[in-house]
Amino acid sequence: MRKILVIGSGKSTSYLIKYLLEKSESENLFITIGDININHAKLLINNHKNANAILLDIFDSNSRAEAIKNCDIVISMLPASMHINVAKDCIHFGKNMVTASYISPEMEALNQDVINKGLVFMNEIGVDPGIDHMSAMQVIDKIRAKGGKMILFESFTGGLIAPESDNNLWNYKFTWNPRNVVVAGQGGAAKFLQEGTYKYIPYHRLFRRTEFLEVDGFGRFEVYANRDSLKYQSVYGLNDIKTLYRGTMRRVGFSRAWNMFVMLGMTDDSYTIDDSENMSYRDFVNSFLPYSPSDSVELKFRHALKIDQDDIVWDKLLELDIFSSKKRVELKKATPAQILQKILIDSWTLAKNDKDMLVMYHKFGYELHGKKHQIDSTMVSLGEDQTFTAMAKTVGLPVAIATLAILNKKITTPGVQIPISKEVYEPILNELANFGILFKEKEVPYHGYNPLNI
Amino acid sequence: MRKILVIGSGKSTSYLIKYLLEKSESENLFITIGDININHAKLLINNHKNANAILLDIFDSNSRAEAIKNCDIVISMLPASMHINVAKDCIHFGKNMVTASYISPEMEALNQDVINKGLVFMNEIGVDPGIDHMSAMQVIDKIRAKGGKMILFESFTGGLIAPESDNNLWNYKFTWNPRNVVVAGQGGAAKFLQEGTYKYIPYHRLFRRTEFLEVDGFGRFEVYANRDSLKYQSVYGLNDIKTLYRGTMRRVGFSRAWNMFVMLGMTDDSYTIDDSENMSYRDFVNSFLPYSPSDSVELKFRHALKIDQDDIVWDKLLELDIFSSKKRVELKKATPAQILQKILIDSWTLAKNDKDMLVMYHKFGYELHGKKHQIDSTMVSLGEDQTFTAMAKTVGLPVAIATLAILNKKITTPGVQIPISKEVYEPILNELANFGILFKEKEVPYHGYNPLNI
Repeated sequence: MRKILVIGSGKSTSYLIKYLLEKSESENLFITIGDININHAKLLINNHKNANAILLDIFDSNSRAEAIKNCDIVISMLPASMHINVAKDCIHFGKNMVTASYISPEMEALNQDVINKGLVFMNEIGVDPGIDHMSAMQVIDKIRAKGGKMILFESFTGGLIAPESDNNLWNYKFTWNPRNVVVAGQGGAAKFLQEGTYKYIPYHRLFRRTEFLEVDGFGRFEVYANRDSLKYQSVYGLNDIKTLYRGTMRRVGFSRAWNMFVMLGMTDDSYTIDDSENMSYRDFVNSFLPYSPSDSVELKFRHALKIDQDDIVWDKLLELDIFSSKKRVELKKATPAQILQKILIDSWTLAKNDKDMLVMYHKFGYELHGKKHQIDSTMVSLGEDQTFTAMAKTVGLPVAIATLAILNKKITTPGVQIPISKEVYEPILNELANFGILFKEKEVPYHGYNPLNI
Repeated sequence: MRKILVIGSGKSTSYLIKYLLEKSESENLFITIGDININHAKLLINNHKNANAILLDIFDSNSRAEAIKNCDIVISMLPASMHINVAKDCIHFGKNMVTASYISPEMEALNQDVINKGLVFMNEIGVDPGIDHMSAMQVIDKIRAKGGKMILFESFTGGLIAPESDNNLWNYKFTWNPRNVVVAGQGGAAKFLQEGTYKYIPYHRLFRRTEFLEVDGFGRFEVYANRDSLKYQSVYGLNDIKTLYRGTMRRVGFSRAWNMFVMLGMTDDSYTIDDSENMSYRDFVNSFLPYSPSDSVELKFRHALKIDQDDIVWDKLLELDIFSSKKRVELKKATPAQILQKILIDSWTLAKNDKDMLVMYHKFGYELHGKKHQIDSTMVSLGEDQTFTAMAKTVGLPVAIATLAILNKKITTPGVQIPISKEVYEPILNELANFGILFKEKEVPYHGYNPLNI
């Protein structure tokens, strides 16, 4: 039997493990799941005869080496920062490796060693990064194959709540790491390209510079810019492109409300508040407002941000109970971002029967025979329950499919890589389609950002 | 003769050198001015028989040691980051030292060596820091001497344009390092204490959270908070104080207009703009606004920041000619802050006959015999011309006076220190008064921030 070692059995591994178990008979697989806590792994395996859960402490180099030595391929579903020792062991023992994480500089540095050993280290093969790379490159390659020249590429992803479970004023719940949501966009100005011009948005303006998108059957969304839209410009071969813009999708209205937190400084993660433990939510809000005990925290808030009494953003705040003088922060020496995260978790945690939704939207603008064209491509994936979420499906399935394709020698080009070549994306996208993860493409008139050609 | 070595002969040394030259006969002084460029030093010395200008490269350790060895005391007017090697030589050769700079961690680390050698290293003895320390501690000590308990301390300084030269819409010109003005307030949230409560203001809100001050005979000013109002809390012995707030003074209206630059991201110093060299001022502004060639940069700007057509801030922008498509940035790979600085220098550079103004405002709140009191203390110093500026006077005179006091053994307590003890501030403030640098104190009703005691 071919032995697959899956390291980590967190939220995003349900579909990954399910897929491998289902293929274990026909593909002759044995799956070992190693984790520091094997309870979730055992639930996912459910006594399947072709799988086993083992206690594995990734920081114990002996047991890590032992587990890696005994398998044919390694899937690391650990947090991105923990891959590197696994990767070095994989090189040492000559094992291929798959992760859904961004390639770190340390991982990139292993490229020559990986090539020398003839190994495939496939990274960024979850949803974003992952499905975005594959689905974009498939269309870009098609456009190029017919002689088209790319002039615009925009790409947006959102991990959201499914319409049937969308029952709060923010149209948002945490379907993924809450911390990433709270600090999203921080660390420098967002930079992107529009019609050949670089544009910059400082963090504190990011949520006021949104654009709208429409997804058939799912209505309207808004997007805010990622920090670095140009990250994959040369990797995708788009050095001469005029417009390059990547972003994050939310339901319309989220960003305008979120901007209140940004403006007051509540998303700041760079300092801690001394007595945060004993603060009420109201105290927390008040620490960003002028001292004036003759005025209510509510009126100071409204005045500071010029919020009218009938503005919907006010109801969104009240829904969070953020002015409560009874609820306590309870976190010691917490940053504003950590405190805000705690307040939001109270309201935005998925209920038992809630389902999530993953939405992706690409725009491809190109010139062909002197004319401008545009293809819009959209994908929506809905979760089934709280174990089999859309996030777990879209992250885990590409990882599982890529692992099998490497085992079966369908993907053979060695090196530390991401899924942008046809050899990689074609078999994986074909198989994803069998699971309902497929893109709807449509030709639309090309507008770009200068429709009048001024 | 007692030999004083002054290292550096920049803008802030005119009064310093003039004072020492005038005292050179009665005090038996010889002043050596060392600089990498001695033109300005020669002008300031003007062939005085008790002074000499020498070429001194501070990075050449031999000539630095030679110069320091041959003097009795060293004044370093170098940029703060350049003091450290001078300080080490002073310890080695057993010389006292005076600087107007903040004590760096490296300087602080020398304290025990300085004490062991019985030397006085007096720092932060310019205007801010310097005169602020001395004038504040004098009043605080007086309040304590009569049994009062400090409950509020607020302190504000502004380097501004004198009323007679105040002829632009911003009521501001560069009277000091322009870079410090452009990046003022950056690097983290401002933190201060009001009535026992910590308050936080993120950078992008700093210029909308101003307060007003009135200075008799000079009208109204506004202040924005310094990043760390609590820096001297324990040094001043104010650990139990309820309100502690330090800030920067501007003429009313400056901050509301400056906020436009902050909001658009034009003060960002954390990244460079690729083709900045060939940008027009208009291109620069446009890079922070949405791409939309059918709209003017002006209307996009007004819309982004919701500026009405009759708002005075708009005239302030026009005065800077910031929408010019002819004026070029010319700086290679510049940060937004560097480009903005260049645009502002066009408009805010002092004209030949312009005079500057230094304003300081302290508020001292205290309890005595169960009642609350307040003393407001203000100081205004006006420049005489572009050499003998208020900035040079208020920075240089305390340095010069302290140097003489150390030479004359009036200040003897050894160590790396700042001027907060009576031994230090009393002789210096007395002498400063002879030069018109004196504080007007007045008793005012104590209001604090909770006048109704809610």
